[in-house]
Amino acid sequence: MSRLAAAPTVHDVAQLAGVSAGTVSKALNGRGQLREETRKRVQVAAEQLGFRANRLAKGLIEGRTYTVGVLTSDSFGRFTMPLMNGIEDSLGAGSVSTLLCDSRGDPLRERHYLAELLGRRVDGIFVTGRRADPRPSLGPLPVPVVYAMSRSEDPLDLSIVYDDVQGAGLATSHLLAVGRKRIAYVSGPARHLSTRLRQEGTERTLLAAGLSLPPARVLLGEWSESWGRSAAHLLLGSAERVDGIVCGSDQIARGVADELREAGVDVPGEVSLVGFDNWDVMVEASRPQLTTVEPNLKKLGQLAANRLLHAIDGGELGSGLVLLPCDLVLRQSSMPSGP
Amino acid sequence: MSRLAAAPTVHDVAQLAGVSAGTVSKALNGRGQLREETRKRVQVAAEQLGFRANRLAKGLIEGRTYTVGVLTSDSFGRFTMPLMNGIEDSLGAGSVSTLLCDSRGDPLRERHYLAELLGRRVDGIFVTGRRADPRPSLGPLPVPVVYAMSRSEDPLDLSIVYDDVQGAGLATSHLLAVGRKRIAYVSGPARHLSTRLRQEGTERTLLAAGLSLPPARVLLGEWSESWGRSAAHLLLGSAERVDGIVCGSDQIARGVADELREAGVDVPGEVSLVGFDNWDVMVEASRPQLTTVEPNLKKLGQLAANRLLHAIDGGELGSGLVLLPCDLVLRQSSMPSGP
Repeated sequence: MSRLAAAPTVHDVAQLAGVSAGTVSKALNGRGQLREETRKRVQVAAEQLGFRANRLAKGLIEGRTYTVGVLTSDSFGRFTMPLMNGIEDSLGAGSVSTLLCDSRGDPLRERHYLAELLGRRVDGIFVTGRRADPRPSLGPLPVPVVYAMSRSEDPLDLSIVYDDVQGAGLATSHLLAVGRKRIAYVSGPARHLSTRLRQEGTERTLLAAGLSLPPARVLLGEWSESWGRSAAHLLLGSAERVDGIVCGSDQIARGVADELREAGVDVPGEVSLVGFDNWDVMVEASRPQLTTVEPNLKKLGQLAANRLLHAIDGGELGSGLVLLPCDLVLRQSSMPSGP
Repeated sequence: MSRLAAAPTVHDVAQLAGVSAGTVSKALNGRGQLREETRKRVQVAAEQLGFRANRLAKGLIEGRTYTVGVLTSDSFGRFTMPLMNGIEDSLGAGSVSTLLCDSRGDPLRERHYLAELLGRRVDGIFVTGRRADPRPSLGPLPVPVVYAMSRSEDPLDLSIVYDDVQGAGLATSHLLAVGRKRIAYVSGPARHLSTRLRQEGTERTLLAAGLSLPPARVLLGEWSESWGRSAAHLLLGSAERVDGIVCGSDQIARGVADELREAGVDVPGEVSLVGFDNWDVMVEASRPQLTTVEPNLKKLGQLAANRLLHAIDGGELGSGLVLLPCDLVLRQSSMPSGP
């Protein structure tokens, strides 16, 4: 294989610096008694040759591998990527590396990956997934575990998720603030926890304002644009017109916007819309562009990584459910007078 | 940290099996002379305690870490995820693990990550990125490197990409097959290689059929739905009407479909549309659903991983540019009589 360059060894560095291999090792590990001039000569030689200390050997000596596992229950995708970015930020650009494992929803595959990660002596593990619904705990392990954007059923575990109730509450408060009063909630399947929590956030906020969310204004279906269009069609056909809609996702909100526009209903003139996710592809292509709830997934990843690193360093991991607040991003779809 | 379970050691296994630690090591590594009965007793004890051999120590002895690096130039996202799935398939569910590094388009950050991966003694490296445009080579390294969905500028490197020219050719042939003759090409920025290659594929196929792609029917802009809408608007305003459009992405195709529908042009009755990417979110929400080019990213990942594993095992890596063929996925947007 002509493209393979021989990796320089300790002996190459020793020869160039004119010292013994033992001296090279001492100089690069910062151990032992050495003259500063010698240490510098070794460092220059190592640099010149592109010599890289073997981190694995270092890990075995220190009892750390500077590696963490990320175990996802169902594919790395749109939601896990910003989370991974945040994790990577906190892990410090490669000084701690991440091993990715995707169990694809298969519990057996997950056990296999877990054994693999422990066999590789990772310093800690993140568990994540697309769904907010509680999942079985991995149980007590020899390394700390953080459930990020994922809820362990065991309260002794540490789970960090964004706050669906508060996020939907923000959306609803905003609709009230722009003068909307007859508000509907259009969302995904009722079996998903996030659907129910976002409904709770919407309902609670309306109740606090002396309003209500009657069953006829709750439309639960699926996480798709086509459901958004169908739901809007149903709302248009009902006797009492709504003037504001909290949508469970940006895809749904976009479908609602399309259907309303094509039926001649002015958004946001007659109806204000708010989405959920702040997914650029959807919110920007929607006509009008979508006001939406930002779940701060990157921030969630950063926090999860900070907690895990703290525990790896011997600190307390903590336990229970940590809820991170969402933000609201304002665009055209919600404000009758324009932003 | 109450959630930390002590990991069982070789000594725990030895005690339970009633043998020495050395015997446990021999039994689990399949080395040395041991009675079958003893080997079995150790295995049962290890199983019972959930003992896991230290793969790092194993790696140091064998000179392999069963770890590969994945270095992406710009974020893990929509295109890299199916690729990663394919890589993971070929690597065999965790028996070889992947270390993810995202240089976020910063060459300095990439050098840093590369040093990190080599320091961790990965067995091989994948280089990937969102763009098809040629990128600088990492140069000769001590481990094999495969550029996957990425082109190295150095022909001595192995680069595997999908075939943009052939993919656009498939789309164009299909439009010809359903009777379209005045075909336009609407795509992303001219500075992107994939824009130019897809144009080449469209043009070549038209020329081979005795037709042409006049400059007025080439509209290059950006990779967005809003550009698709603008481009369709421009096409509607031109003197000669087109009856088929090859789009450089599904987002563009969807924008084109929306604009045509709202202008009262029947798709596919009057104009047939083909997208590129087979991105489920776009092709399914589009009205009508989009016929599109499938770039087979998962298959590309599998092939790249097979080539890398072969080289890690001492086989020839190979070099140059490998083009993987695309497929065409038929949906409603292209066939005047319906699929």
